[in-house]
Amino acid sequence: MLYKVTPPCPSYPSSIDILDTTLRDGAQSPGISFSVADKIAIACALDELGVRWIEAGNPGSNPKDREFFRIAPTLRLDYAQICAFGATRKKDCTVQTDSQLQMLLKAETETVVIFGKAWNMQVQEVLNVDPAENLAMIAETIAFLTEHGRSVIFDAEHFFDGFLSDPDYACATVQTAYKAGAHCIVLCDTNGAAFPDKVFSAVSLVQPSVPAVLGIHTHDDSGMAAANAFMAVKAGCCHVQGTLLGLGERCGNMALTTLLPTLELKLGLHSLPPGKLANLTAIARRVAEISNVILPATMPYVGTDAFSHKAGMHADAILKAHHSFEHIEPAQVGNDRHFLISEVSGRSVIAERIRKINPEITKEHPLTKALAGKLKSLEADGWQFEGADASFDLLIRRELGWDCSFFTILAYRVANEHPAGNAILCSHAWVKIMVGSTYEIAAAEGNGPVHALDSALRRALTRFYPQLERVRLSDFKVRVINGKEATAATVRVLIESTDGTRVWTTVGVSEDLVDASRAALVDSIEYLLISAGEHAIADLF
Amino acid sequence: MLYKVTPPCPSYPSSIDILDTTLRDGAQSPGISFSVADKIAIACALDELGVRWIEAGNPGSNPKDREFFRIAPTLRLDYAQICAFGATRKKDCTVQTDSQLQMLLKAETETVVIFGKAWNMQVQEVLNVDPAENLAMIAETIAFLTEHGRSVIFDAEHFFDGFLSDPDYACATVQTAYKAGAHCIVLCDTNGAAFPDKVFSAVSLVQPSVPAVLGIHTHDDSGMAAANAFMAVKAGCCHVQGTLLGLGERCGNMALTTLLPTLELKLGLHSLPPGKLANLTAIARRVAEISNVILPATMPYVGTDAFSHKAGMHADAILKAHHSFEHIEPAQVGNDRHFLISEVSGRSVIAERIRKINPEITKEHPLTKALAGKLKSLEADGWQFEGADASFDLLIRRELGWDCSFFTILAYRVANEHPAGNAILCSHAWVKIMVGSTYEIAAAEGNGPVHALDSALRRALTRFYPQLERVRLSDFKVRVINGKEATAATVRVLIESTDGTRVWTTVGVSEDLVDASRAALVDSIEYLLISAGEHAIADLF
Repeated sequence: MLYKVTPPCPSYPSSIDILDTTLRDGAQSPGISFSVADKIAIACALDELGVRWIEAGNPGSNPKDREFFRIAPTLRLDYAQICAFGATRKKDCTVQTDSQLQMLLKAETETVVIFGKAWNMQVQEVLNVDPAENLAMIAETIAFLTEHGRSVIFDAEHFFDGFLSDPDYACATVQTAYKAGAHCIVLCDTNGAAFPDKVFSAVSLVQPSVPAVLGIHTHDDSGMAAANAFMAVKAGCCHVQGTLLGLGERCGNMALTTLLPTLELKLGLHSLPPGKLANLTAIARRVAEISNVILPATMPYVGTDAFSHKAGMHADAILKAHHSFEHIEPAQVGNDRHFLISEVSGRSVIAERIRKINPEITKEHPLTKALAGKLKSLEADGWQFEGADASFDLLIRRELGWDCSFFTILAYRVANEHPAGNAILCSHAWVKIMVGSTYEIAAAEGNGPVHALDSALRRALTRFYPQLERVRLSDFKVRVINGKEATAATVRVLIESTDGTRVWTTVGVSEDLVDASRAALVDSIEYLLISAGEHAIADLF
Repeated sequence: MLYKVTPPCPSYPSSIDILDTTLRDGAQSPGISFSVADKIAIACALDELGVRWIEAGNPGSNPKDREFFRIAPTLRLDYAQICAFGATRKKDCTVQTDSQLQMLLKAETETVVIFGKAWNMQVQEVLNVDPAENLAMIAETIAFLTEHGRSVIFDAEHFFDGFLSDPDYACATVQTAYKAGAHCIVLCDTNGAAFPDKVFSAVSLVQPSVPAVLGIHTHDDSGMAAANAFMAVKAGCCHVQGTLLGLGERCGNMALTTLLPTLELKLGLHSLPPGKLANLTAIARRVAEISNVILPATMPYVGTDAFSHKAGMHADAILKAHHSFEHIEPAQVGNDRHFLISEVSGRSVIAERIRKINPEITKEHPLTKALAGKLKSLEADGWQFEGADASFDLLIRRELGWDCSFFTILAYRVANEHPAGNAILCSHAWVKIMVGSTYEIAAAEGNGPVHALDSALRRALTRFYPQLERVRLSDFKVRVINGKEATAATVRVLIESTDGTRVWTTVGVSEDLVDASRAALVDSIEYLLISAGEHAIADLF
């Protein structure tokens, strides 16, 4: 029986070497295009996290990577070693005549990663060489590089597919690499086709015959990348390859953000310098920014929703005991806990929010109950406050009887005219407001109806509230809630505003897009004026 | 006995029952808010895919779910059975006095899913009852429901955490549920804290003492959801719970889109009716649309990038042998292969589309090259034709020199007035068009500016093209492309139209939302008129 639950190897290793290949395999992601500056910024971030190796590119394949390796020696890295990546020599070259190997040497990294084929079918159908010749290519390439003073990590491409198809040949490739001098042999699930039980058994079987450091490199095509690496570690691998965010071709490489906390917090294995794991979320978000990708909110450990709680029952339980619905403390990976406001979030969460405004109102207070009821009926109409904290704050204050209305819109009109007139943009608006007993009317033009309305409204109000001059809208989103009724459907508008220091989000819902925007704009302005008022009061004391 | 599958195994089962909980656990996702209409549309999509059970909500927790269960019996489902979800009775009630159980009965589903606590620590710290009382709550609740003719699936919440902390008590909870009459016992990794090896051993150990159908329910907090379910199936579970897209609290539930192809294509286990797996991608994308979420491009099996190849070497190898860098044929799950950077492959795809309109235009034709260039520059401006086939069709025809303009809009004006006048809705529009040398002007009112413009435009055109009377807009979406410039940002509008038999989608992009909608509306009408013309010609022969 291959599969055993108790740890396989005599004992699995106590520390794991991490190789990040964001800059090489990660660069194969659709939509990713790293500049040399991006590569440097990412290498520094990975070093700050404390990974052991940074596989930074293939100097034989493109000039941008060669430029990076030219600069790399000037980077001051505390933990990481940069390594270059290349292939075994070409079939019709010698190691001396293969230009790719020459460029690999010129990258002047102490360590190089060499990939070679381990799947007999690929050797014959794609590489189109004799299996023995492939072994020679592996042996000669590694020997050549070690003779030139390089330390070699060997990536056995398609190892697990090869192991299923012809285990003897797959094993022969890694034994050849070991004998030729590779100090680390990495078993690669290049297609992401392997499963945890098979990975465990394959690693267990290979290990006795290859006394090198064994490594694992997995892809997520079956959603098994992290599990496969986990089981490989349990079977004795102590070198793990992945990309910080899971960037990589197709479904991506294994995300190190997923595996690193598991190794340290669940298996007690060290893979980063002490204390570094608490920087994981911040560094992941920084690398996402540099890479210009949006980190999925649901990403294990580091996603913004990884510790978000919506169901009321869950939020209740979390407040009693964190481990109820959290497998770790979010701070261990530098992430935060969130309670989301929604119809299912329950009164504890609502009470928590009310307490910030009026500490005397408890979960059992009739106002809390009333607000929970109101929230349910608003959500049934398409309102949603999860992404609109400022609107929810106003909802609470209004329910508590606060007067939040600093102004009233008596009437407004927005017009779109195409073609535009000679003297005015296509969209223009006027609005008539009342502040106390004073009327004001203002007009503005804009790009699109919401822009025009926003400009007119703020123009009318600035006479009364000059602080509005600093406010600008920083994001604007429209969702059709019930798309199936088409243009007569209800729309929900989310508006993000900023006064340069703070950012707040408000929501509006209506059958009419312009009116939904008006509601969100009004909330945005009232929220600013209320909190400005609080600051003013606070300043008095 | 309602529930049948081959009994759990010595060797693992040949067919797996799937329970989708998108409408219940999936509704806990941050940002998700299903209307009753959404729930119905998703239930129909899941039925079309052929899942066995749809866990549709908790009638005891909110009125929207109760409304769904009122309507559910009228849905004509071919494969799926709707079930309601609830908790064991409250600690200070009897089963008769627990209002939640009464509402569960009123949902009138043949099968109900009941969750109860299996982790002693939770029982004491969160539920705050004696462990024996928790067992009584489980037993009495299940007995009560079976006495009322319900078939009961028991979800053992936190089973794997409980099994680690107090295996005897965790096992006692599921044995109690079995003895009380639950026909299926589901082991839940509620916190997503379990790992594949432990799941395998726990399921293997529990099985002999619980001769019910065993099920598995996993969450993705450690990125192990699919692997844990996979190992549970290997250990003998033949009921699997997940959400189609992986929606769910925190990091989400296990995505069925990840596990279903693995079960069928990798393990040879049947979980969907024959042939249904090839609909997986289309149905997943439809459910994403209804849920208003964006399916991650890297999602295993169904993501748009799941079979995308960027590296030239990989694309080359793929052309020699698909299995080089693909673990399955994309068509097996209804997905497509894409070659990304290669402009040549880009043009192949465009040429394929042009050929449908003019079979003589090849990939090397200057028009194909011109269109590829035009597409690039339009995409740089925010246009996107992936979801707008009809607009892309028109783009090709215009590039081929076809006259697609059946009318010209000379001017239009849309106004929003608040408050509304006495005799007119808040939004109204007029439009002046020219067909040949004849002018027409028409006005209409509507819910929102786009509705009003659409009504006015079609009213003006119907005199010339009576077939427009049958057309109606069936969906309408707005995306802000560059949100950071807020209300002055560029917006992209997608409009789906139907004449009752066909459905087509068009796109418009502008800084002005109304003008973007105008562009999409014009394309929609022109596409109908062109294809109507083609039909008329076809009818002559």
